[in-house]
Amino acid sequence: MHREVVLGVDIGGTFTKYGLVDQSGRIYLEDEISTRDHKIIEDFIMALHRHLDVHIDRKKERFTIKGIGIGAPNGNYYTGCIEYPPNLVWKGRIELVKLIEKAFGVPAVLTNDANAAALGEMLFGAARGLNHFIMITLGTGLGSGLIVNGEIVYGNDGFAGELGHVMAVQNGRQCGCGKRGCLETYVSASGIKRTVFELLAEETADSEFRKITFSRLSPKMITTLAEKGDPIAIKAFEKTGYLLGRCLADSVAHISPARIFLFGGLAKAGNWIINPTKRSLEEHLLPIYRNKIEIVPSALLNRNIAVLGAAALIWKRLEQQGEL
Amino acid sequence: MHREVVLGVDIGGTFTKYGLVDQSGRIYLEDEISTRDHKIIEDFIMALHRHLDVHIDRKKERFTIKGIGIGAPNGNYYTGCIEYPPNLVWKGRIELVKLIEKAFGVPAVLTNDANAAALGEMLFGAARGLNHFIMITLGTGLGSGLIVNGEIVYGNDGFAGELGHVMAVQNGRQCGCGKRGCLETYVSASGIKRTVFELLAEETADSEFRKITFSRLSPKMITTLAEKGDPIAIKAFEKTGYLLGRCLADSVAHISPARIFLFGGLAKAGNWIINPTKRSLEEHLLPIYRNKIEIVPSALLNRNIAVLGAAALIWKRLEQQGEL
Repeated sequence: MHREVVLGVDIGGTFTKYGLVDQSGRIYLEDEISTRDHKIIEDFIMALHRHLDVHIDRKKERFTIKGIGIGAPNGNYYTGCIEYPPNLVWKGRIELVKLIEKAFGVPAVLTNDANAAALGEMLFGAARGLNHFIMITLGTGLGSGLIVNGEIVYGNDGFAGELGHVMAVQNGRQCGCGKRGCLETYVSASGIKRTVFELLAEETADSEFRKITFSRLSPKMITTLAEKGDPIAIKAFEKTGYLLGRCLADSVAHISPARIFLFGGLAKAGNWIINPTKRSLEEHLLPIYRNKIEIVPSALLNRNIAVLGAAALIWKRLEQQGEL
Repeated sequence: MHREVVLGVDIGGTFTKYGLVDQSGRIYLEDEISTRDHKIIEDFIMALHRHLDVHIDRKKERFTIKGIGIGAPNGNYYTGCIEYPPNLVWKGRIELVKLIEKAFGVPAVLTNDANAAALGEMLFGAARGLNHFIMITLGTGLGSGLIVNGEIVYGNDGFAGELGHVMAVQNGRQCGCGKRGCLETYVSASGIKRTVFELLAEETADSEFRKITFSRLSPKMITTLAEKGDPIAIKAFEKTGYLLGRCLADSVAHISPARIFLFGGLAKAGNWIINPTKRSLEEHLLPIYRNKIEIVPSALLNRNIAVLGAAALIWKRLEQQGEL
């Protein structure tokens, strides 16, 4: 059997996930390689190529890869470059699209990982038919993809949609970007950890967290302890949702979306994070926006949404260029 | 001479301005009527009709009015209604497009006044060719129009772009909308007045403002006194620009515009307001956005930008519907 597919790639700080995806969103092959172990970008691309070849050789099917879509932190759609990524091993300005196209011999297109996630939700998840929505990805940091009039908002320079760095708290926590009080220092896997430790300092309540080191703590443990009634865990979700809802109220005042999706490890906490976020959103919204906006977990929480979104991006490009 | 024109209407709390505008943006007739004196919407529309007829009769030219574009506070593009305007004499939900179309017998289209201003700048001002920009209108309140991919952002409900109500200061000044700390309670004609009076309370500096009542104070007087070196006036602009720049940094993180335009009475203060806004914007931007974004006064500061924008809106609609 011969199949026409694209390669969808989701580059993260630690791992890079990839998949061969057909035009209907079906994934034929899915795996990951280490990002961090390949300190030189050319080595990384070679490793990805080799890894994929080995997998394809094992299959009984023949694949034609028509193009490559990539989601990566600080990936710029317009320039095809990853520009000054704070959390990747590669530094400066990496001409990823150029290098990938040279190595694979097919067209490639790049965007940031949160935009890819938004596209994935739009094409294969619960945002089908929505023209105005926001995707919030809660990983180590907080990423966001904004959809207006059915299109990703790239902005003038390709870097629109950095909600992780809006000001959540004046003179607040130190952020990796050099500023203080950025939303992602409160609302993200690392943000909620910082909140747990802040609460351990502020409150006297007994808590399982008093026996856990900062390094070992994960968002999943916070959910587990919240379910057991740990007061610090519950309060940490309350505080996290409060700040997320307050900042999202300002995002609504910008683009007035129909729905806001949460994706990533912290989103898996479900109502522990959704409910306080909703309450705070409604409290801080301008009256005309109240009781209109849904906040829901992504419908693709347990799938590789960014791989799917990156694949969707290149399928779209190929279509536009009449190469199908 | 026979001319094909549209009627552009800019409804404000006190006055309604209107003009007959051809497709190239030339205004043939321009005047205003009172908004406030017509407590019933049907009376207002009749007054506008009569006023216009009198003017046209006096002219040597014959006009065919092809359609009517309207900018109004809380004007909703999708529904054609003014919905719960806080600053107009008419209350509730006013079916303006329906009423106007019935009275004039031509198609009409409605948007809010700040969106109309953004359209005016895009078609006849300094935003020609820009696909991503923000228009901030500084009147009694603060309005905004967002342009993404060359189109006004209306959002899911038609009410996108309410930057006057993002949170500028946590637990800050009381706003007419029922919330606290909204940007327009600091950055607007009334906002800077409140800041002047706050500074008179906080500081001991001698100032001309100590002889002026709150009711009499105008933004123009603040500019005049700043030029004379009045320390309270200068500080009031500094504080106003600081908060505007800080909030705009968050707007940039949403849509990454090429340029931000300021329109309205306070924008006429020029560098008194522009310079502190720029400094604060750069200070609060994520590094990737720095030194890219221009903040400039509207190129149509002394013209009726909203009348022009409303006219542009209906010309565009007529074009799309093939009625030209």
